[in-house]
Amino acid sequence: MNEIFNATPHRRYNILTGEWVLVSPHRTKRPWQGKQESSAPKNNISYDPNCYLCANNTRMNGEVNPNYKNTYVFKNDFGALMSDSPNLNYNEGLLKAETETGICKVICFSPNHSETLPDMEISAIEKVIEVWQKEYLELSNDDSINHVQIFENKGAIMGCSNPHPHGQIWAQKSIPNEVLKKTTKQQEYFIENGKSLLEDYIKQELKLDERIVFENDSFVSLVPFWAVWPYEVLIAPKRQTQHIGHLTDLEKRDYAEQIKIVTQKYDKLFNTSFPYSSGIHQSPTDKSYPEWHLHMSFYPPLLRSATVKKFMVGYEMFGMPQRDITAEIAANSLKDL
Amino acid sequence: MNEIFNATPHRRYNILTGEWVLVSPHRTKRPWQGKQESSAPKNNISYDPNCYLCANNTRMNGEVNPNYKNTYVFKNDFGALMSDSPNLNYNEGLLKAETETGICKVICFSPNHSETLPDMEISAIEKVIEVWQKEYLELSNDDSINHVQIFENKGAIMGCSNPHPHGQIWAQKSIPNEVLKKTTKQQEYFIENGKSLLEDYIKQELKLDERIVFENDSFVSLVPFWAVWPYEVLIAPKRQTQHIGHLTDLEKRDYAEQIKIVTQKYDKLFNTSFPYSSGIHQSPTDKSYPEWHLHMSFYPPLLRSATVKKFMVGYEMFGMPQRDITAEIAANSLKDL
Ligand SMILES: O=P(O)(O)O[C@H]1O[C@H](CO)[C@@H](O)[C@H](O)[C@H]1O
Ligand SMILES: O=P(O)(O)O[C@H]1O[C@H](CO)[C@@H](O)[C@H](O)[C@H]1O
Repeated sequence: MNEIFNATPHRRYNILTGEWVLVSPHRTKRPWQGKQESSAPKNNISYDPNCYLCANNTRMNGEVNPNYKNTYVFKNDFGALMSDSPNLNYNEGLLKAETETGICKVICFSPNHSETLPDMEISAIEKVIEVWQKEYLELSNDDSINHVQIFENKGAIMGCSNPHPHGQIWAQKSIPNEVLKKTTKQQEYFIENGKSLLEDYIKQELKLDERIVFENDSFVSLVPFWAVWPYEVLIAPKRQTQHIGHLTDLEKRDYAEQIKIVTQKYDKLFNTSFPYSSGIHQSPTDKSYPEWHLHMSFYPPLLRSATVKKFMVGYEMFGMPQRDITAEIAANSLKDL
Repeated sequence: MNEIFNATPHRRYNILTGEWVLVSPHRTKRPWQGKQESSAPKNNISYDPNCYLCANNTRMNGEVNPNYKNTYVFKNDFGALMSDSPNLNYNEGLLKAETETGICKVICFSPNHSETLPDMEISAIEKVIEVWQKEYLELSNDDSINHVQIFENKGAIMGCSNPHPHGQIWAQKSIPNEVLKKTTKQQEYFIENGKSLLEDYIKQELKLDERIVFENDSFVSLVPFWAVWPYEVLIAPKRQTQHIGHLTDLEKRDYAEQIKIVTQKYDKLFNTSFPYSSGIHQSPTDKSYPEWHLHMSFYPPLLRSATVKKFMVGYEMFGMPQRDITAEIAANSLKDL
């Protein structure tokens, strides 16, 4: 099958969103004369006096960071969401707008200014997962929050303005577009089959063993069949788990190991501190979602090298996403590292 | 109303796609310490011996460009789509893929290596519109083509690898995601109201006059209420027109004037050759689509200056698009130029 996939432009269906991606494997032969990204050598300093995320430093708003030892969470000083926004409900002819309330938080992964996830001990990554758990559970108890988006932007190329390893949480009242799509598709499957769409998908992938990157007892990392970004990876628990709050200690350890291995492979792939946006999709928090199956995705932009990325522009914006290398080739490259 | 919009994080509904955008106007106060794009000074050479789009030059595949005087269209030498792909129909459990066939073309707008759309005479832009018409109509007659995507990527930041002014056409068998969404929404409205959703929307915008950038007899440019990109603009005919093939000579002239004025304003905004992806959404070509209303959109990435762009990353990829300045402020800045 893979030979045919590699020789034929085709489209693949994303079972989680109901959308398609165009795969054009022959296009890897295209010469690239366009933009080269700069690939700054990685810093090795553990403390930067000018960093607003390092311990003991003063932030823009005058607050002083504590002398934290593992993780540190604070409310984003320039968050896109606020909890006390005035009420707005605008419905005029074809124009429709409404207030969005919520909270934006920053999570420092480590006090060490240069210690990114692949550099951290598995036990330290477990502490990050525990913070995600705690935050998700606390925010779910807030009646004005119905969705908690945990994510990380890594690298200047991904709009990250500070190399200090950190992620974010944007928690809000309404449920975002991408999560609505995945809710619909998982629900349809759950109603029809009485089980988790992603659990069945993972079973199929483990059996085929063509797109698996790394497997341990309770988790698996794979390049999804419908991957959009060249080296996109999905990490998920094998058993259906609606949200991160349900993970056991053993599962947290397995999850932490997955994050460590995947991000280490990324750094090795083009011998660079690999940029990406990662995010956790899980059940919204307004009610129970029996169909949801927690998963984390990595969307990394690099395509050919540390300096040549994939542009999601013209056709991709107006039509549909397009990729060059197949998911199978990407999975093999990552697996072999 | 605009005062409230400017003071309150809110979300706005896109009537064409059914999706929401988060607007966080207070966030414009956020200091930017992240990536600065390079803003290369614009070239002024009219001929580049190394450019594979200039007249009389030889392309990678050995073909020689003719000595063209206005526009020149050829089949993309490294297209993502091919017309003769082997048949593939893969349906295994939860995996679904199928061959995609089609054709990718390149359209040179002018033989002059540095003459971008804002530099061109209106009559020369009319010639580009005529090529789009001709290509759309010819490709619609091809039974194996059901959708024709016309677009342009301008600027290295938008993945464009050659500054010679040119656009592309990707025409294919299946109908891409974005077009499906817009078909659904326009159809719903058309069935319920017996008229074009976009025509009614344009009427409302003209009456309100808060987001209009430029109006002439038959066309209008505006920043849509639900704009995602900071200076996103939509250009559309006021009367419902399913596709570009239906435009009259007068309408083509008005359309050309809109393109000239909008792109000139863009270049003036940050005093740079303004990067963007633009694209035309119109009826697919497999059957008649009485609900469709042709429109062209510009998605430009710049946010604050020629070197600071908006990143659609983490939250935007996993949740929903987010913007800082409101559509009204963007429209006013463009209108005033
Ligand atoms: O075809 P080009 O200009 O070489 O390539 C550019 O436009 C294409 C269509 O939007 C994208 O798929 C590519 O990522 C981009 O670099
Ligand atoms: O919040 P930050 O890291 O300053 O900003 C970054 O992440 C945000 C959330 O994905 C984006 O909206 C911004 O465009 C990006 O620069």
